[in-house]
Amino acid sequence: MLEHAKREQQNKRMQKSLSAFELRQLIRGNNFTGNTSGYAKGKVQGNVVILPQNWAADFLQFCQVNPKPCPLIGMSTTPGDFSLNDLGKDIDIRTDLPGYRLFEQGQLTQELTDISALWTNNLVSFVLGCSFSFEESLIESGIEIRNISENKNVPMYNTNIACKSAGRFSGNMVVSMRPMVAKDAIRAIQICSRFPSVHGAPIHFGEPSLIGIDDINTPDYGDNVTIKAHETPVFWACGVTPQLALMQSRPPLCITHSPGKMLVTDINNSSLAVL
Amino acid sequence: MLEHAKREQQNKRMQKSLSAFELRQLIRGNNFTGNTSGYAKGKVQGNVVILPQNWAADFLQFCQVNPKPCPLIGMSTTPGDFSLNDLGKDIDIRTDLPGYRLFEQGQLTQELTDISALWTNNLVSFVLGCSFSFEESLIESGIEIRNISENKNVPMYNTNIACKSAGRFSGNMVVSMRPMVAKDAIRAIQICSRFPSVHGAPIHFGEPSLIGIDDINTPDYGDNVTIKAHETPVFWACGVTPQLALMQSRPPLCITHSPGKMLVTDINNSSLAVL
Repeated sequence: MLEHAKREQQNKRMQKSLSAFELRQLIRGNNFTGNTSGYAKGKVQGNVVILPQNWAADFLQFCQVNPKPCPLIGMSTTPGDFSLNDLGKDIDIRTDLPGYRLFEQGQLTQELTDISALWTNNLVSFVLGCSFSFEESLIESGIEIRNISENKNVPMYNTNIACKSAGRFSGNMVVSMRPMVAKDAIRAIQICSRFPSVHGAPIHFGEPSLIGIDDINTPDYGDNVTIKAHETPVFWACGVTPQLALMQSRPPLCITHSPGKMLVTDINNSSLAVL
Repeated sequence: MLEHAKREQQNKRMQKSLSAFELRQLIRGNNFTGNTSGYAKGKVQGNVVILPQNWAADFLQFCQVNPKPCPLIGMSTTPGDFSLNDLGKDIDIRTDLPGYRLFEQGQLTQELTDISALWTNNLVSFVLGCSFSFEESLIESGIEIRNISENKNVPMYNTNIACKSAGRFSGNMVVSMRPMVAKDAIRAIQICSRFPSVHGAPIHFGEPSLIGIDDINTPDYGDNVTIKAHETPVFWACGVTPQLALMQSRPPLCITHSPGKMLVTDINNSSLAVL
């Protein structure tokens, strides 16, 4: 049993050094089904949303008018297209995520590791930037990210900030929170401003109640993290926002990534910097 | 008397539309002796420090190692040079400020409107960027600057943040404070990051005690301004810092601008943006 655990650990260490392409191949063969956080370092990981063609235009517009919570970094060129060549070599969106969630009429009905059997020629795929990219930049610049140092999921909260509506999609913004001292928060604002395609600059800091958060110690999603003395909670627009809007608008069918099981692309995080 | 007041007002309105060059000519002829804030809109105004040559190298180094409180935007090319051609047409630093302060051994001994009589061939002039430039950008972007809307001097505070020492110069940083809601503070950090030569991004926000300020309602310099509910005090490195260091190091002679009576240059504020 000890031997087995040792082999597992060795295996994981080896997998962490794989390229994004190699990792996708493992995932495709069902030889990797875990969370993608920490793998293919330096590469952009994306949230995935797949919708029928007659819901896609509304969702595209929702992303365009709410770029901070819904930063679109790629989409399929035609309905039914399952390759996203702009995002990486030989991507097959039907098999290259470690986990998928199927929603029918806004209800989660199934978790899968392969959606080939569900695929039809009218499905449109969207890939949205996620916070992993900017967290990497913040850590490189010496800022502690509490959810990472405490090995937790980032705490996320519903807010009273209304998104702009687009067709059948509407809803309030969901935010993620990372506590920091003011000096680090100022630096984080500078760094994240360079990365609008992965949520950009924070949207708020300080008093949580001003954006409709009653209890900072009870996140609506993810885990509670320690806020130390003299730290300020800093809030970023979060990729759960579009998922909430999707559940509320109840399309007949919608497929997303399972939480933490992202599309790992070949794009460098650094290439997302606008300046 | 009413006629006189009317003429005064008309005169002031006319002067506000003058170019930086025209304003300097008025000042030189002693026809303008007031504060320069609000005049020659869009043009950089600078703090002035004039020192004997054997103190100049230390001060230059102090500016270079403390660029946030001491952002150097110009200096005379040789000792004794009183024109600063890089900063504006026909500038004569001896006559073109509405007011000067003479310090001897660190003590204020005289206020003057012309320093030609004091001029010697070993004096070196320094011009430092000031907050007027970034305040203009913040206002243009719709952010209220409380000291301006309340028609006061910006509140300034001594801190416990030590500057880096250089030769005979050392001292703690002085900061200016502008209260804002978080959303505006985030935008202000983004905007001011583009302008390192006029103090750059804020150095702190939130709890004043963390940088050694005991009572936010009792500024050490300038006026107290209203901090409204839900606003955070935001702190910038301030141009009073080098003045404090100068008074502490007691050079035999030092000439500065009188507070609010700046050198008005021909440089556009917008040209200071690094990106």
